[in-house]
Amino acid sequence: MREFELLRYIYDANAALAGEIAIPPGDDMAMIRLAGRDLLAAVDQVIDGRHVRLETTPLALAGRKAVTRSLSDIAAMAVRPVGALAAVVLPPDFGAERAEALFDAIRATAADYDCPLVGGDIAFHGDASHPLTCSVTVFAEPVNGRAITRAGAEVDDVVYVTGALGGSVLEDGGGKHLTFEPRIAEAIQLAAALGPNLHAMIDLSDGLGRDASHIAEASNVQIVIDAAQIPCSAGVDWRVAAEGGEDYELLFAAAGDVPASLTGGLPVTAIGRVSPRRGEGEPAVVIRHGDETITADELGWQHES
Amino acid sequence: MREFELLRYIYDANAALAGEIAIPPGDDMAMIRLAGRDLLAAVDQVIDGRHVRLETTPLALAGRKAVTRSLSDIAAMAVRPVGALAAVVLPPDFGAERAEALFDAIRATAADYDCPLVGGDIAFHGDASHPLTCSVTVFAEPVNGRAITRAGAEVDDVVYVTGALGGSVLEDGGGKHLTFEPRIAEAIQLAAALGPNLHAMIDLSDGLGRDASHIAEASNVQIVIDAAQIPCSAGVDWRVAAEGGEDYELLFAAAGDVPASLTGGLPVTAIGRVSPRRGEGEPAVVIRHGDETITADELGWQHES
Repeated sequence: MREFELLRYIYDANAALAGEIAIPPGDDMAMIRLAGRDLLAAVDQVIDGRHVRLETTPLALAGRKAVTRSLSDIAAMAVRPVGALAAVVLPPDFGAERAEALFDAIRATAADYDCPLVGGDIAFHGDASHPLTCSVTVFAEPVNGRAITRAGAEVDDVVYVTGALGGSVLEDGGGKHLTFEPRIAEAIQLAAALGPNLHAMIDLSDGLGRDASHIAEASNVQIVIDAAQIPCSAGVDWRVAAEGGEDYELLFAAAGDVPASLTGGLPVTAIGRVSPRRGEGEPAVVIRHGDETITADELGWQHES
Repeated sequence: MREFELLRYIYDANAALAGEIAIPPGDDMAMIRLAGRDLLAAVDQVIDGRHVRLETTPLALAGRKAVTRSLSDIAAMAVRPVGALAAVVLPPDFGAERAEALFDAIRATAADYDCPLVGGDIAFHGDASHPLTCSVTVFAEPVNGRAITRAGAEVDDVVYVTGALGGSVLEDGGGKHLTFEPRIAEAIQLAAALGPNLHAMIDLSDGLGRDASHIAEASNVQIVIDAAQIPCSAGVDWRVAAEGGEDYELLFAAAGDVPASLTGGLPVTAIGRVSPRRGEGEPAVVIRHGDETITADELGWQHES
């Protein structure tokens, strides 16, 4: 069973609750209306053997990634971090020094992004062969009353991506998936610069095609990407860049003028356009490469059982 | 390394952040001040083989417990649930039907306590021998501007407990630890009835002695419990009741009149008194049993590695 199908199962059954839920589950963060104020929340996980490999990954980078994965959801909504909670399950022989190193990294990373760790839980597995798991919940608040969802892309919008794609996981297990910067400041900068012209946004965690399809599905449009325009990391071709996943760059649909780069020189590249979606059978995302048109809805990384 | 020492390590290092954190980590929930409003948050976990045993525990009860453990933290603060997020790691062969049954239980339990599931994450282990883990983050808001912390017990307060203790885990793995009711409504009722006379509260998860010591340490007092007054579950003596853990009843310190029972007939029993604590070397909690005085700080369940 696929993660996405399961999540959809959960969210669909939850739709009846939408009264106080301003943005229901299924976007990068949910938003709840709380006595007239909006609060956003999201949770993400890092598991040894799946998202990191503690045999080779330094603990500090594992702890960092546990937080930055969730922070990237905050970036995707262009909202402001408020606080984080971390729940960790350790193998019984993990050791105090290593546990402290892990939590130092979690706490320091959260603090670095103004998202202080305010709570946590630690539990131990019964068996030393069971892997470290770490879930991090983050809270955030809207900026100028706004949070940018996946829904809202309009026909004739241009589709943009920040940074370069495809350098995420190197053969030695390292790479940008351990060291990426959640684009929180850049997202807030974009939302301020574009105002109502910023229509929809997501962070690239699963892969360009798959994440673009989340915007296309939520907005009921088709996204057409030009392979030649995809900004690729050094040594990587467009197919790897589109399939890689874990880039944690921003993908967004906007009208009007868009800056060519953001604070710190982060490039913004137009890679495609929003088209009408003619029917259910039509792909949500296609990539044009010369004369080829490739269905890209499934291009990317999928947690599959 | 003990869970409590690790948590203390984390919290101590976090104390510098206390500016926007109205109740710092270390209580049942943290409280964040968010643009003039207070938001409480907590996270707790359920792991197969530790808190439940899926070989014998029905999935519906495992999912229920994953939520009720966190809801009990909301009860401990006498605050109002707002929403929940669940992060689950499944063995790869878990199966779609069972995953749906688990999430049905999580969602239904959260809804039952007016704490709607608004977000979640699902990941899969790499190996079928790795256990299901489920972390649930809950958030809540103060009631009438208040949240009841562990700090605030005063000398000469009476110490009370709701319900009966010691029936938590039966030999067959069942028992109240799977079916307990988080005392949210009762806690809010207590806070309304007692007003400023309700000084400190906690939920009984680790055991009477250990949880009482959390109040005593946070309040810088000693708690003296009378063994003869401890309300015991059927067939259980006071030692088992004091050591059992996972009762998820309320333990609180209050002055003045306290109702003998709460809505639904839940009994409230006076079991002890708050004394001055003379020095660091003195126990935080003692139980008097006839002529015996037993140091009870460590009486209870401890997640130990």
